[in-house]
Amino acid sequence: MSTTETYLIDSIRLAMENVRERNTWPFGAVVVKDGQVLARAVNEVEATCDSSAHAEMQAVRAACRALGKPDLTGCTVYASGYPCPMCLSAMYLAGVRAVYYAYSNEDGAPYDLSAERGYVELARPLEQREMKLAYVPARDEGPDLYEAWRERQGR
Amino acid sequence: MSTTETYLIDSIRLAMENVRERNTWPFGAVVVKDGQVLARAVNEVEATCDSSAHAEMQAVRAACRALGKPDLTGCTVYASGYPCPMCLSAMYLAGVRAVYYAYSNEDGAPYDLSAERGYVELARPLEQREMKLAYVPARDEGPDLYEAWRERQGR
Repeated sequence: MSTTETYLIDSIRLAMENVRERNTWPFGAVVVKDGQVLARAVNEVEATCDSSAHAEMQAVRAACRALGKPDLTGCTVYASGYPCPMCLSAMYLAGVRAVYYAYSNEDGAPYDLSAERGYVELARPLEQREMKLAYVPARDEGPDLYEAWRERQGR
Repeated sequence: MSTTETYLIDSIRLAMENVRERNTWPFGAVVVKDGQVLARAVNEVEATCDSSAHAEMQAVRAACRALGKPDLTGCTVYASGYPCPMCLSAMYLAGVRAVYYAYSNEDGAPYDLSAERGYVELARPLEQREMKLAYVPARDEGPDLYEAWRERQGR
């Protein structure tokens, strides 16, 4: 068995524990750097009352804590299911190098466990999205926010 | 001044506090439901060593805590800057109805504060992405994960 498969099966076992022990979502994720496991996590949306607490997201956060910095450059994530766009973007922004997943959206669709919905929304033109997104260029009195930020950075 | 502008200026003031008091990223966000402010948050990536702790994400998490459920149906988010795809997806998945932002990616670009990068990555074909994403259909021995989940749901 390849190393990739070994870590993916670990993510599946985490997900299975979530189903059997906590009766909740079947998702797990493992973060690895240089052959070392930095974090193992499960979907904790129900446990934490936090809609963002997907398995990959919790794994990213735990890996950041393990490294003591918000930067996962060079890390690989092994996820039981296809990441939703929130988690995919979180991993990308953190500098994750590669993501492997064991269950595709097609595998998940018959169980209503596909992450497709978020990608469909993002791919829609703005005027066709379910969630309105609108630019209202309000400005506070006084110095401009971004100018103040640049000034601080220059110090 | 419209209510939208009032909340956006509140998000800008939060962001300005982050710059002036904590010398960090100029981003703030406010979550409102039925005219009531549920959460006010700032970018806490540096403070928490968590790459996912963007202002909108922290606001979503705090609003979930305030409501005691991982569901922000009917909420509106006011963000100082254009949301990155992680935050946009987090808000969408949580059921947020509308998002207003005060500084666009174009406003942010001269300061290197645009969220464009994450959208560019998502729009790339898989084989051209910076972050590898690969399907490896590993399976554990014993019952299938998603079948086990369905069985539990049926109880």
